[in-house]
Amino acid sequence: TANDAANADVIGGLDAFFLIFAGALVFFMQVGFAMLLAGSIREKNVANVLLWNLLDSAGGALAFWSIGFALAYGGDTPGGPKTFVGNTGFFLATEGIDLHFWFFQFAFSCAVSSITAGAVAERTKMTAYLFFSFFLVGFVYPVCAHSYWSYNGFLSAFTAEPFMGQGVIDLAGSGPVHMCGGAAALVMCVILGPRMGRFYDSEGNLRDEPKPMGPHSVTLMFLGTFGLWFGWYGFNPGSVLFISTDNQGNVAGLAAVNTTLGAAGGVLAGLITSTIIGARKTGLYEWDTTAAMNGGLTGLAAITAGCASVEPWAGFLIGIIAGWIYLSASKLILKLKIDDAVDAIPVHLFGGAWGVIACGFFSNPARMAASGVPTAHVGVFYGGGGTLLGIQILAVLFVFGWTSVTFVPFCLGLKALNMLRIDELEEEVGMDISRHKGPAYRPEVVDEGAIDNLNQ
Amino acid sequence: TANDAANADVIGGLDAFFLIFAGALVFFMQVGFAMLLAGSIREKNVANVLLWNLLDSAGGALAFWSIGFALAYGGDTPGGPKTFVGNTGFFLATEGIDLHFWFFQFAFSCAVSSITAGAVAERTKMTAYLFFSFFLVGFVYPVCAHSYWSYNGFLSAFTAEPFMGQGVIDLAGSGPVHMCGGAAALVMCVILGPRMGRFYDSEGNLRDEPKPMGPHSVTLMFLGTFGLWFGWYGFNPGSVLFISTDNQGNVAGLAAVNTTLGAAGGVLAGLITSTIIGARKTGLYEWDTTAAMNGGLTGLAAITAGCASVEPWAGFLIGIIAGWIYLSASKLILKLKIDDAVDAIPVHLFGGAWGVIACGFFSNPARMAASGVPTAHVGVFYGGGGTLLGIQILAVLFVFGWTSVTFVPFCLGLKALNMLRIDELEEEVGMDISRHKGPAYRPEVVDEGAIDNLNQ
Amino acid sequence: TANDAANADVIGGLDAFFLIFAGALVFFMQVGFAMLLAGSIREKNVANVLLWNLLDSAGGALAFWSIGFALAYGGDTPGGPKTFVGNTGFFLATEGIDLHFWFFQFAFSCAVSSITAGAVAERTKMTAYLFFSFFLVGFVYPVCAHSYWSYNGFLSAFTAEPFMGQGVIDLAGSGPVHMCGGAAALVMCVILGPRMGRFYDSEGNLRDEPKPMGPHSVTLMFLGTFGLWFGWYGFNPGSVLFISTDNQGNVAGLAAVNTTLGAAGGVLAGLITSTIIGARKTGLYEWDTTAAMNGGLTGLAAITAGCASVEPWAGFLIGIIAGWIYLSASKLILKLKIDDAVDAIPVHLFGGAWGVIACGFFSNPARMAASGVPTAHVGVFYGGGGTLLGIQILAVLFVFGWTSVTFVPFCLGLKALNMLRIDELEEEVGMDISRHKGPAYRPEVVDEGAIDNLNQ
Repeated sequence: TANDAANADVIGGLDAFFLIFAGALVFFMQVGFAMLLAGSIREKNVANVLLWNLLDSAGGALAFWSIGFALAYGGDTPGGPKTFVGNTGFFLATEGIDLHFWFFQFAFSCAVSSITAGAVAERTKMTAYLFFSFFLVGFVYPVCAHSYWSYNGFLSAFTAEPFMGQGVIDLAGSGPVHMCGGAAALVMCVILGPRMGRFYDSEGNLRDEPKPMGPHSVTLMFLGTFGLWFGWYGFNPGSVLFISTDNQGNVAGLAAVNTTLGAAGGVLAGLITSTIIGARKTGLYEWDTTAAMNGGLTGLAAITAGCASVEPWAGFLIGIIAGWIYLSASKLILKLKIDDAVDAIPVHLFGGAWGVIACGFFSNPARMAASGVPTAHVGVFYGGGGTLLGIQILAVLFVFGWTSVTFVPFCLGLKALNMLRIDELEEEVGMDISRHKGPAYRPEVVDEGAIDNLNQ
Repeated sequence: TANDAANADVIGGLDAFFLIFAGALVFFMQVGFAMLLAGSIREKNVANVLLWNLLDSAGGALAFWSIGFALAYGGDTPGGPKTFVGNTGFFLATEGIDLHFWFFQFAFSCAVSSITAGAVAERTKMTAYLFFSFFLVGFVYPVCAHSYWSYNGFLSAFTAEPFMGQGVIDLAGSGPVHMCGGAAALVMCVILGPRMGRFYDSEGNLRDEPKPMGPHSVTLMFLGTFGLWFGWYGFNPGSVLFISTDNQGNVAGLAAVNTTLGAAGGVLAGLITSTIIGARKTGLYEWDTTAAMNGGLTGLAAITAGCASVEPWAGFLIGIIAGWIYLSASKLILKLKIDDAVDAIPVHLFGGAWGVIACGFFSNPARMAASGVPTAHVGVFYGGGGTLLGIQILAVLFVFGWTSVTFVPFCLGLKALNMLRIDELEEEVGMDISRHKGPAYRPEVVDEGAIDNLNQ
Repeated sequence: TANDAANADVIGGLDAFFLIFAGALVFFMQVGFAMLLAGSIREKNVANVLLWNLLDSAGGALAFWSIGFALAYGGDTPGGPKTFVGNTGFFLATEGIDLHFWFFQFAFSCAVSSITAGAVAERTKMTAYLFFSFFLVGFVYPVCAHSYWSYNGFLSAFTAEPFMGQGVIDLAGSGPVHMCGGAAALVMCVILGPRMGRFYDSEGNLRDEPKPMGPHSVTLMFLGTFGLWFGWYGFNPGSVLFISTDNQGNVAGLAAVNTTLGAAGGVLAGLITSTIIGARKTGLYEWDTTAAMNGGLTGLAAITAGCASVEPWAGFLIGIIAGWIYLSASKLILKLKIDDAVDAIPVHLFGGAWGVIACGFFSNPARMAASGVPTAHVGVFYGGGGTLLGIQILAVLFVFGWTSVTFVPFCLGLKALNMLRIDELEEEVGMDISRHKGPAYRPEVVDEGAIDNLNQ
């Protein structure tokens, strides 16, 4: 009828509006990443990582437009057979692709890349980063996204015959986005090796404590953290993808609430726990800003999977545990002498993995149903036994395995070709001077005499 | 009918979308506050106030989730009896709460807390701030919000029998948000006392002029001011709460226009007036960036109450007067030797109070009706006599009274327990070094020899 | 029927929501401009340009509210006669103006002004900038907007008898916004002359290379660039103006995609081309952050016109060519000894002109029809012959001609009255100290002794 048509029209516009603005908020996470990374590292490589971040958007757009989107979602067919990757839509050259959907997914793909930029900062060659980032956004991430979210993905809850009758629970990508980026960062960090002087002094002796290398600006770190938290309100609620029914509105609302509580739990657990541990050792109550910020970001990376399938109390709890996981994982990688310049591995790899697994415990049947996934198997705490938990663990292993299997040879290849790491002198001086025409900050001394003259 | 149902469905989704995105913009005000406060103070306490800001969000989420929301809106019943506070919905554990509404209100509650963070900076103990902030968001603010906005609030225009047949006019919270935060800041500043050396020199002699303590970065202040102005487009238009009718769209549009003109009026009045006053004294035309920024923010705090009930010309005028009020109030508190590190008291307490009172003068009957409040009494300039003005003044006194009555004993208690103020040495060194593991900025000198080697 | 009415109601609310939030994103471009400009220049004038930016918003609001909007859109009548300017709606004092439309257009008008702020930085008097900005937003820009977009504009595609049966293609303002701002900047830069010492040394000898004057902070430049890119997702998709049909959703989606690809093309072309050119000269691969950022911004300025009428591949190509245009134009104006402190002329004037012209080549008939413009003449590459191209070139000439014709006498007048340029001593010391009560950054040295005491 005419009314149905009118309604369909409004719905079409409304849903496009939703994804465009949610996508814009996700894009804002690029601001967040850029400022967080820049703040976290040493002054001499700031312009370098900021440029990488811009290339995560620009090169990411090229990679996702040319190849990535087609592999992730090209030719998605509800009810169709399972596939490893999609196969149409390269360069958006296929009819009928929803462009607002492409835009939203593009913004996601940039985030994957930006997760890695900070971890490998201060020692990676510019071209290496470009290849690495293109490979990640164009190929490795799309396979993860396809598996989790496509109508034809083998782990997806949206296929005709979902995995184990259920499929993996991950609304917004703790697995395909955060873990994938985090795992790529881990591989690259291990193969690159640490920054000069980080674990050993100039004579090759192991330091008692790793040498601090940054942050050069705590202010920028906070700016970035707030920017990411803000953008996450596009990332998680936006992943509901449609907002034209009352139910979708409620699901998106739950996602916003859980995003808030997950972040809050992570901040509080990261901050308070590190303060108490420190005070037990030294007797002094110090409040570690980095623990608060990265705790919160780990909470966000974790709540991303279950934001639409767990209750608010569980969202808060997932955040708290994420804060603890951050503190432990951050220590662990230092112990393993892995040098992650911005702690992206603890935040995104460990936080993301915890988030996917947490869905196996906390997924609530009613919330799952509302968010449009099967409820054949539900969270352990809702009497679901271990099946959903098993699926979630498998999904974690898949992302980690796939990302490692593709990145280890890729990075080793770059290394063999001597394309991976900058030379020592460049590392000492910093890439801003060596490669980017000067330092990021150029203060200037005004002639005191002139000031005196002016004042007369 | 099916069409009615379809429409109801679209409306449900649309209204949720509106509040989620408006809430995200309000959350962005956290970025604005953080950067404004950090920029306004001295370098040595920057990490400290930034952490407070993050805790306004994280601890605020906990406070508002556990207690605050329930007291503010729990069990709201249209047409029900008047109550002092709500009583259900603790931890969101009651069925049927609109989660997008919770999210939007959470973002508001963070703003109340962030208003105070700057004022008391550079001398308050970390734990004191945490208690203070929790008490504010969890208890004091919710009572204000309940009174003004609940279906059961005693001042509310939305009750069955609104106060004086009318109820208070305050769409978005010049009273419950800005005045409440500003009044809490005032109480705390008075009880804390000024920063060391602010009004007296090291020998205890009164200075001719208060010693400037900040800003350490005008750039950050502008970033924060713009961020706040941007976020205000969620704060004010979002407070219409629904956007699924033509009328609601118009009301939200008016709110956006008035927000713009209120800010503009405040910037221009603050800047130009201070320039003229200065030029009369010194003969030199100087343009004070702080007067422009804080004038604008005072305009925003003021237009928040009447943004949907006054005409655009009145919005601009309210902003201009707000700019003047800022300049006067800022001088006044210095004269009273109250040390507000970021001028939050002039901006939010005085600006907020002016905004509530201004509604008594400028509220336009047609605009009031469109925004859904009674029109039993309208603005003085529309022939309403003094009744609405009286209601508005009473509403101002209520917020100020309630906030003072609760905070004076609370802060005196903290003081008595010696939990309020850091010790002198810590104040001299700054809290970043004493409590947060190092300064906010850590520049690094690159070896000149290495640069020379590189250039060869 | 009741259902029609219900639908109309939802549509009214939805469309208002769309423009309010798109307008807020456009307003966020003020943050972007502010940070980009501040970062690009020397430290000693940072507070000054930031204040200008705030006045672009505040003074811009006054200018656009009082005069600008009325001239641009006042009394717009579908099917009515062609007019040079509108003539009602001064101070929004006419009934029936859509306030959300006003708000969206206000945010555009601020952007025009902010484009110019950076170009003329570090040497323009405060009052000159105020007059200049008011004249631009209140009068010069509105004529451009009216001509391109009004129902009664002589170049408009939306009139009863559009120009050449077609009218100009420019969805979001490569012409009226970016070119207009860029042309005003060019006029002002030429009449002002370069900053002291930029092209000649203190003895008046021509330098081999212009003396670098900034950036003082590459970090702020990136923050600004990302902020602008983000805001552009309001600027371009928002210019569809309505989002209540499926088709409008698709058009807005295309605008978002093209915005992304145009930016990406510009970043990549600017960066890679400048690197290759540099390496050919010096043998060293350097990656110029400014070329990447300004290349991207030129891509954005260019794709603004055709974002809804060209295919994604064309969007990317337009961006690439924009990147090249930036590099060439930036060199050209230096050769002409025009001193544009932030390269606004290459980005906005040249980028904007290219964007309008590109529509003459790439406009796709189906996309044009969907976006609601006639298809009497289409792009050269779609068999449209040269007519549309001719229209577009004429539209470019109009904006450039009109802006020059109005600004040349205006700026010469200011110069004749000695109101244009600050004196030499002030220029040497910087305007922050001379006019804004102190430098933008005020670091502070904490007494080492106190730190030692604390640590004991």
